[in-house]
Amino acid sequence: MFKDDSYMLHTDLYQINMAKTYFDKDIHNKRAVFEAYFRTMPFKNGYAVFAGLERIIDYIKNLRFSKSDIEYLETLGYDEAFINYLREFRFTGTIRAFKEGDVCFNNEPILQVDAPLAECQLIETAILNIINFQTLIATKASRIRELVPNDQLMEFGTRRAQEFDAAIWGARAAVIGGFDGTSNVRAAKKFGIKPTGTHAHALVQTFGDDYSAFKAYADTHKDCVFLVDTFDTLKSGVPTAIRVAKEYGDKINFIGIRLDSGDIAYLSKKARKMLDDAGFKDAKIIVSNDLDEYTIQSLLTQGAKVDSYGIGTKLITAYDQPALGAVYKLSAIEDENGELVDRMKISGNVEKLTTPGKKEVYRIINNETKKSEGDYITRVGEKIDHSEPLFMFDPVHTVKRKYVKNFTAVKKLHDIFVNGQLVYESSSIEEMSQLREAALDELWEENRRLLNPQIYPVDLSLQLWEDKKSLIESIAERDINA
Amino acid sequence: MFKDDSYMLHTDLYQINMAKTYFDKDIHNKRAVFEAYFRTMPFKNGYAVFAGLERIIDYIKNLRFSKSDIEYLETLGYDEAFINYLREFRFTGTIRAFKEGDVCFNNEPILQVDAPLAECQLIETAILNIINFQTLIATKASRIRELVPNDQLMEFGTRRAQEFDAAIWGARAAVIGGFDGTSNVRAAKKFGIKPTGTHAHALVQTFGDDYSAFKAYADTHKDCVFLVDTFDTLKSGVPTAIRVAKEYGDKINFIGIRLDSGDIAYLSKKARKMLDDAGFKDAKIIVSNDLDEYTIQSLLTQGAKVDSYGIGTKLITAYDQPALGAVYKLSAIEDENGELVDRMKISGNVEKLTTPGKKEVYRIINNETKKSEGDYITRVGEKIDHSEPLFMFDPVHTVKRKYVKNFTAVKKLHDIFVNGQLVYESSSIEEMSQLREAALDELWEENRRLLNPQIYPVDLSLQLWEDKKSLIESIAERDINA
Repeated sequence: MFKDDSYMLHTDLYQINMAKTYFDKDIHNKRAVFEAYFRTMPFKNGYAVFAGLERIIDYIKNLRFSKSDIEYLETLGYDEAFINYLREFRFTGTIRAFKEGDVCFNNEPILQVDAPLAECQLIETAILNIINFQTLIATKASRIRELVPNDQLMEFGTRRAQEFDAAIWGARAAVIGGFDGTSNVRAAKKFGIKPTGTHAHALVQTFGDDYSAFKAYADTHKDCVFLVDTFDTLKSGVPTAIRVAKEYGDKINFIGIRLDSGDIAYLSKKARKMLDDAGFKDAKIIVSNDLDEYTIQSLLTQGAKVDSYGIGTKLITAYDQPALGAVYKLSAIEDENGELVDRMKISGNVEKLTTPGKKEVYRIINNETKKSEGDYITRVGEKIDHSEPLFMFDPVHTVKRKYVKNFTAVKKLHDIFVNGQLVYESSSIEEMSQLREAALDELWEENRRLLNPQIYPVDLSLQLWEDKKSLIESIAERDINA
Repeated sequence: MFKDDSYMLHTDLYQINMAKTYFDKDIHNKRAVFEAYFRTMPFKNGYAVFAGLERIIDYIKNLRFSKSDIEYLETLGYDEAFINYLREFRFTGTIRAFKEGDVCFNNEPILQVDAPLAECQLIETAILNIINFQTLIATKASRIRELVPNDQLMEFGTRRAQEFDAAIWGARAAVIGGFDGTSNVRAAKKFGIKPTGTHAHALVQTFGDDYSAFKAYADTHKDCVFLVDTFDTLKSGVPTAIRVAKEYGDKINFIGIRLDSGDIAYLSKKARKMLDDAGFKDAKIIVSNDLDEYTIQSLLTQGAKVDSYGIGTKLITAYDQPALGAVYKLSAIEDENGELVDRMKISGNVEKLTTPGKKEVYRIINNETKKSEGDYITRVGEKIDHSEPLFMFDPVHTVKRKYVKNFTAVKKLHDIFVNGQLVYESSSIEEMSQLREAALDELWEENRRLLNPQIYPVDLSLQLWEDKKSLIESIAERDINA
């Protein structure tokens, strides 16, 4: 067995096999541009929240083949010249990406790698593994946050997460997406997130009844939330919580109660009245138990009295769509003259057509409304003339078109690594969450609603659209002549 | 920021808060029994494949609060006495569990912890996090394996996995569930699994056409699988693969082709004919592209010509049910006299009723048929008399009953840790996969089918059933008198 002491081999075998072909053909250092994007919006949402960059930075910074990686690859039969190349491998390219917390959309590059071909290839799998999960969870969290802008939202999903990393990176993504805290102490420690939680049913079972358990908790903690549904919520749990809160008075900080089973809408209303009648108008009602944006919407519709939500399984696994399908495609490669030439993938499924060329993403903000007119994709280096109306059109349904005047075009891809050097300074998670709020403020309400949101325009510049068309035609022509 | 240098805090905050209550009340060393089980079968399958034990062993063995864990907890305001207790914390209890690869069922303990109360509590979250994911993926993999007993199955899901750990532990679980290999090189290295993969579309795009790309690959690798759908599968990809295979002859080992888009049923039949006509009858057809047991079943029904499947997203995320809901419940606790007394959780949702007591799980094998009559749960220490017919009945629908003669009762929970010492020697992953096959051989075909399997009996011993009934009644009575 080999030691698991690096992330360098956290990639698909074919990446290494392709790197070997490039190396043997001496094109491994040919400049190439790959771009990551997803084709459809997660959860049919109107936007996604980009997340995962910090993990990618850490991965790229430490990227090298460990001694045991090399020894393992030798057992697979790779030759010495190639192995020696791998031994010296470092990432030397340029990576640009959206900021974490910014909103992004389908069919636009959210991360771009401009690097020697073999390097581009070796990092693909890990980058997608990171972005796909973290962006998914941040987006799911944001959907929930949109429903309850002022209530407390806590990530409670570790036990149902898809292994350890999903638990902790998912907790972080949830906070980027608008959550307030997590129950996972390791995630709280690692990322500086607020940890949250008091006690479980086991405490009540241990002491045998609600009263003994709540008293024991109150004897040993200042902040108290009592879980009231171990035996009977309304007959025992809530009255006992009130009794203990009264008996202990100022000795504890009676934050409130938690409901984890039963009919939350009904129980929360009854419990609210009992707490209010007992003089605990400030006591919070915290609920958990398989919640997501749909159950919360239903609770809101029913007038449930909830102050705080603990969201587990449905958030941390993105239960209704557990994978984001971001892909990473070659869009340009150096030719014999050292010039970047466009590349695209045709054939098979039509929706898998890529847009060729090294691209720039702009958000077109209307200076009057302060709202976005859409994202606008150009070739890198294409000038946008702010003094002229900008022609924006849907690249598929080209009759959907408009001229935008008085706008500001804001670049969305930021330099992260330049020629192998990290040049980006990560912001704090709070800042990422604030960036998300600011970015959402630029969208129309209709882009943000839970169900059937208005589709946000992601348009191509005329030049890019024409280049794509002619490349498709030239490939089709070649096929006919073949 | 604190260093992420241990898994000790990979737990919910409430576990630490409960441990503090237990510690302050001096009951943290009271003996307690917790059992992990799930309430419903994943994917409505007829069985589940237990996985995750090796990860749990590693976690428990190394379980201690690091210096930075302690420093972090101090910032949360825990007092010195409790902190000093945590500083010395080690797991000192006993853990029993199913073997990895064995099949297990809902409503039976798959892992049991008999340990000081606070220790039981602190390890709950991580254990569930591990079991829930790995058992889910092993089960999903096994469903796919059952469909195609003789074809090659490869796990291809890293880019869509829910972060890094899911990718590698998921790859391992897939192999326990019957897969042959994985594309993830790190998983292959770490676990001694077969890595698999040749090239992606990017290779073809880089060289600009199928012929140049396949030749370049053939120049630099002995084993060749050509991906044939970058431009046009039947017009370019397959004929070019054949052309290169012919041109290179014995210089390469032409394993076959891979199809990753389009109508796989149609394309595979056409490609098979083209390969056969060209004399490549042994060339394999490998397919990928969003496959799962349902698409494979459809391909089989259509007579698709496939030798090998690469399964990604749908397996690695358990797409149609991305969480297994295993829980971990207190079933017994030491009383004042040092005796274990039963505990159960009532109330709220009826399906959340637990079965009290420290339990044993037997598989009742009929000595004639060699098939299982069901699993039979007893109290630990209850004798099973092999010379008498065994009375088995459904604990919910008690009219479903039978007497089983000439049987062997096989214990399913094995000692893993005894009083804190690891006593279990893990088998190899191949052995786990073989154990799964052997365990499945003991089930009837009707338990194993993909859709609407016969429900496998998980019965309680009469004593356990009666104890459960009377505990429910005594709690109900107490509530009435309260």
